[in-house]
Formats: sequence, C-alpha cells, structure tokens
Amino acid sequence: MTKRITFLLLIVFILAGYQAVSSQKTSSPPKSSRSKTAGTFNGYELVDKTGNIRKPADYRDHFEILGTWFVLDPKGNQMHYTYASPGTAEYYRKNGKFADGTVLVKEVDGTTHAQMTTGDAHWAADYIQWFVMIKDDKQRFPNNALWGDGWGWALFKPDAPDKQIATDHKKDCLPCHIPAKANDWIYVQGYPVLKSK
Amino acid sequence: MTKRITFLLLIVFILAGYQAVSSQKTSSPPKSSRSKTAGTFNGYELVDKTGNIRKPADYRDHFEILGTWFVLDPKGNQMHYTYASPGTAEYYRKNGKFADGTVLVKEVDGTTHAQMTTGDAHWAADYIQWFVMIKDDKQRFPNNALWGDGWGWALFKPDAPDKQIATDHKKDCLPCHIPAKANDWIYVQGYPVLKSK
Repeated sequence: MTKRITFLLLIVFILAGYQAVSSQKTSSPPKSSRSKTAGTFNGYELVDKTGNIRKPADYRDHFEILGTWFVLDPKGNQMHYTYASPGTAEYYRKNGKFADGTVLVKEVDGTTHAQMTTGDAHWAADYIQWFVMIKDDKQRFPNNALWGDGWGWALFKPDAPDKQIATDHKKDCLPCHIPAKANDWIYVQGYPVLKSK
Repeated sequence: MTKRITFLLLIVFILAGYQAVSSQKTSSPPKSSRSKTAGTFNGYELVDKTGNIRKPADYRDHFEILGTWFVLDPKGNQMHYTYASPGTAEYYRKNGKFADGTVLVKEVDGTTHAQMTTGDAHWAADYIQWFVMIKDDKQRFPNNALWGDGWGWALFKPDAPDKQIATDHKKDCLPCHIPAKANDWIYVQGYPVLKSK
C-alpha cells in the first residue's frame, strides 16, 4: 500500500514537472518581441561570415526610437530617424555605453510640410537612404574594411534597399562621425532617452 | 483501494492544474515585452474606473514610434514625437484602423540646433507637454467629458508630469484635430509606417 502511494506521488511530481516545462514553452512571448531582452540584442543575426551586413526588415515595427533629427537645408530638408535594437536605451542608461551587438538604423527621409493647426509642420516623406551600424566589441572582422573603430558600418539606398553599397568605413562613414568620436562616434546629444526615460 | 487510487488521481489533476496556472504566471515574458502582442494592447491598464487616464511611464523604451513632426515657429521650434503602444502600426496596416485599447502618446519637446556635419540639425530638448489618447470602440465612459468621439483624451505638463489636466476633450483637445476627423482624428499622413514597413 505504501509503495503504491509512493508510486502515485512519483507520478504527481513527474506530471507536475512536465506541466511546468510545457507551460514555459507555450507561453513564450510572440515572435515580435522575442528578441526584446534587457539591452542584449544579437545584431549578428544580420551579419554573414565575412561581415556583410543586412538591413533589418522590421526595424520600424520592432526597434525603439533613440531620436529624430530635422535638418534644415535650402536644397531640401531632411528628417533622420535613429532607431535602435530593443533594449538599447535601457542598457545605455545603466552602463554608459552601447551593448555589443546593438544595431542602429538611421533612416534618412525627405520631408513635406503644411500649415496645420499646430503651425508650420514638417514630416517625413520618401526614403533617401539608410545607415546601419552594429556594435562590435570583439574586432570580429579585422580584414573587412566595413568593420572597425568599434562598429560595423553599412549604407543602403532606396533603388536597391537591401543592397549594402559602402566599401570602406573610413572613407564612406567615419568622416561625418568625427565630431562624435568621444561618444563612440554617436551623436548622443540628440537622444534624450539615453539619459532618462 | 479503488477509492484511494481515484482520490490520488484527483490530487494528480489538481496539482497539475495548479502547476499550469502557476507556470503561466512565472514564465510570462519580462515586463518590457509583456504587452507586445499583435496589435492588441490593453490601454485600459492605464485607466481607472471613472475614466481617469495615466501617462504610460515607459513609452520611450517600449512603445513604437509612428512618426515625428518638426514645427517651425519663430517663437520657438518644436518637435512632436508620436509614440504608439506595441503592435499599433502592424494592426493598422492590416485593418485600416486603430485597435480598441491602442495608446498614443504625443510628446511635445522644445528643440535646440547646431551646424553639424549633416547641416543645420535640430533635435529635441526639454519636454513641453504630452497628449495621450486611448482608442475606445465601446463608449466606456459616457459621463466623462474626457471620453468621446472614439477616444479617451488626456494632457500632461512637465511641472506635474503625472497629473492629467484636461477637463473637456471637446474644448481642450478636439479643436486641433478637426482637420483629421476623416482619419479618426489622427494626422496619419505624418506616419508612413501606417502604410508600409
């Protein structure tokens, strides 16, 4: 009798354990947020073995915004949306730096404007280009000219939006970032979320 | 004996059931992504029984950006960031409307600017105010003047950032939205993500 009860109690524990494992599997977050952990995003899912960088397809839906720049230019105003992989700002506020694997996407748009109830309002229109950067603390691709100075660098244009066209980050990318060298090449002053929520 | 086994099997099922419930609780996704489902966000977690609306604390980290407006004004330029609860754009693209429970946060900021490598660049500085809207398909608060025309409406200022200060949406909120009435009071033209990724 005692043996039988022990056996049944064993079944109880086995079933309870199975139930726990199975619940964990089925209640995992949906795909849309799976990568949303505290500041650690695996940007290297976008990089092949030789260092070629793909532009993330769904950054507008699933990345967070660090900030938007509006550039007044007589030849055509621009709006620059800087998106970051989920968790970037939270990690930066805690650690004062970008996590290895962080992905930044700077979407550069033309603009249009109109007199609206709020005033002379300008907003984004067509894509002009995208800059993508992936944080690299480990010098993963020493022989690839698009990797260096702590990041991977990439450029995409709307006529072939998935084709990376930069060839040398020191010529194609870095010059515009030199004034921000002390902040790991990023113009952090435009991103208040890096300082506070 | 049969009774005893039946009783023990009953315990098995009760424990297994308890385990399932408890696992669902403990293995729920982390706070940062808990609400990230496909287009259905329960904005009513921000609303009390009488319809008072709270401003979501973590929208900068966890909401998606619909778009940013830049308002040129001789008295002081402004930048308006329109954040939306997770899944908003995806739902809108599929259904052509905002889901019941959708939360919009329009953060209005002062700006600063400088001549940068990209040109005369303007970016967000201090908070000026926040508008919050919660989509309501069910006329939940017919006796609350801050609810009506398909939305709950709220206004917050930086001197008391958690204190809702609007009193009547028809006077305090709606007038500025009248030109957008045909689009459910939202200036969707400034939000390209509602049309495509």
